[in-house]
Amino acid sequence: MTQTTPQSQSHWLAPDELEAARQRMPILYVDAIPVRADSHGVVTSVGLLLRATGEGKITRALVSGRVLYHERVRSALLRHLEKDLGPLALPRIPISPQPFTIAEYFPTPGVTQYHDPRQHAVSLAYVVAVEGDCEPQQDALELNWFSPIEARQESVLAEMGGGQGALLLQGLAYVGA
Amino acid sequence: MTQTTPQSQSHWLAPDELEAARQRMPILYVDAIPVRADSHGVVTSVGLLLRATGEGKITRALVSGRVLYHERVRSALLRHLEKDLGPLALPRIPISPQPFTIAEYFPTPGVTQYHDPRQHAVSLAYVVAVEGDCEPQQDALELNWFSPIEARQESVLAEMGGGQGALLLQGLAYVGA
Amino acid sequence: MTQTTPQSQSHWLAPDELEAARQRMPILYVDAIPVRADSHGVVTSVGLLLRATGEGKITRALVSGRVLYHERVRSALLRHLEKDLGPLALPRIPISPQPFTIAEYFPTPGVTQYHDPRQHAVSLAYVVAVEGDCEPQQDALELNWFSPIEARQESVLAEMGGGQGALLLQGLAYVGA
Amino acid sequence: MTQTTPQSQSHWLAPDELEAARQRMPILYVDAIPVRADSHGVVTSVGLLLRATGEGKITRALVSGRVLYHERVRSALLRHLEKDLGPLALPRIPISPQPFTIAEYFPTPGVTQYHDPRQHAVSLAYVVAVEGDCEPQQDALELNWFSPIEARQESVLAEMGGGQGALLLQGLAYVGA
Repeated sequence: MTQTTPQSQSHWLAPDELEAARQRMPILYVDAIPVRADSHGVVTSVGLLLRATGEGKITRALVSGRVLYHERVRSALLRHLEKDLGPLALPRIPISPQPFTIAEYFPTPGVTQYHDPRQHAVSLAYVVAVEGDCEPQQDALELNWFSPIEARQESVLAEMGGGQGALLLQGLAYVGA
Repeated sequence: MTQTTPQSQSHWLAPDELEAARQRMPILYVDAIPVRADSHGVVTSVGLLLRATGEGKITRALVSGRVLYHERVRSALLRHLEKDLGPLALPRIPISPQPFTIAEYFPTPGVTQYHDPRQHAVSLAYVVAVEGDCEPQQDALELNWFSPIEARQESVLAEMGGGQGALLLQGLAYVGA
Repeated sequence: MTQTTPQSQSHWLAPDELEAARQRMPILYVDAIPVRADSHGVVTSVGLLLRATGEGKITRALVSGRVLYHERVRSALLRHLEKDLGPLALPRIPISPQPFTIAEYFPTPGVTQYHDPRQHAVSLAYVVAVEGDCEPQQDALELNWFSPIEARQESVLAEMGGGQGALLLQGLAYVGA
Repeated sequence: MTQTTPQSQSHWLAPDELEAARQRMPILYVDAIPVRADSHGVVTSVGLLLRATGEGKITRALVSGRVLYHERVRSALLRHLEKDLGPLALPRIPISPQPFTIAEYFPTPGVTQYHDPRQHAVSLAYVVAVEGDCEPQQDALELNWFSPIEARQESVLAEMGGGQGALLLQGLAYVGA
């Protein structure tokens, strides 16, 4: 986006402004569970990102990120999927804006199943079929595909941070897998 | 399907048996609203079939049909979409089995918005993106694509029978169009 | 209902007719997960019926039953809840007919997570808050309330037949519990 | 809430900070459509607030408001319903956090159906049954109940601002009314 669009950078938050806002109001996020589906719409596998955290810990993660000022939720979903899975992932953005659930990440642990020490984030959660070639981008080390049965194993869920294991289980329940 | 599968024809209903069942129990249906969507998942057009009824009346219709014995709802949805739109339609069957609503067609008019003089049918309703080439099949005369704004015009809705105009409006509401 | 209504008993199925239909077409059911919720809508407990099966086995079960000819899904839901939980249960029937999922019970095990040796049943599944006094009726021995955490324990889920443990987990995921 | 809670006022936004944030990031809202429902869950009437805008114009409105820092969406929903309908309204907060849709209010008209000149707000929309006595509070002049048929009349929808008429229609579609 360029300076000439109404969404120009001057309308976005500088890092310190974002930091301040994070202590004062809920921040809007999207979470996406990337899946492969067959011609009948049956989910055959689930994609999880492998990331190294700042502290050098390895975690598995969903595709996740902020919705920007003057950005549609659909566009944020597409942007974060392409950012994490690469430009050839061909995500099929859901035609309904209804999320399968909302995940409320609180800075205080235990208020909900979800926790984010940096902020109070409210995330609209979607399951998104991807049809192209996925290549982990940026800070993701790998993208691994799991069958729905593998994905719900305790060992996999335990590697997910911030309560995203619970969100993954909710997404799998939603698709009937 | 062949005689060797558990779903062999002997398990299905003969015409007179179907007729009898229709007077005695609700019959399970699926309704599909075929749509075109852009890369952001925004619905750009809606497909409606043009049919001639037995009485020579012209009506517009959604893709609709029975779920058979031992058939999954997903498979029924795919079968009816391919039957009405042709084998190259490439419908993206929804990954969640949750319908956006159910339509209860009663033989008695006025119980619900939906009416079917032949039977009490309960239909699971889905909006389905189709990505391939659609060719109306069988008893459909044409398949016409409407923008969401055109599709909700009174003149279009009035051409739909059995309350399907109301179902179309519900589907358009569901996708936020 | 009396003989004078259009839904008179003569329109329903005699036992042998029901038996025949069950071998020929999917039968429409509703499944309800009865819950208690607090003033914020947070589910605090889940009610499960304790039943003795014909073979003398003890199982836990959801509220479940057929939709009759010319009966609305809402009415079937209310009828089965009052039949199983008693006339003072005060169920709050959901205002939207959209089920949180559909459960496809196949006579052949393994086609889906759900199994019913008697028939192919397709069930519309709802979570229903009940606000009154519940008394198990008819063939139910007891009604037991579990916290959401207790309800998802392996020992509880293992006592549920036909895949209803999976449906219970989906319902708990749907309410975010 | 008092100074001793983690949600103390110091964590909230001062008016000028809120003003600044509104130009920089999407603000999280909830919208609620208050309804009366019968024992079968059928919506019998819809409640709309009558408000005078700053410019002295009269508009009809849904219950609507911000989600605060460290506040659950359920709590925000309850707070705004009690604020607008009074403490005896007895709203039945939905047991699932899944909104029936999201409404994206943009400061630029025409991006979506929804428009808010003050800000980019993303609202989670719910239909909420209220069972008690409703009294309009604060800046609402009246609360009027409409049958679902009356509520969708062009004359009523035209009195609603910011695209809330479209949201009302979506909510009515969701409950099958």
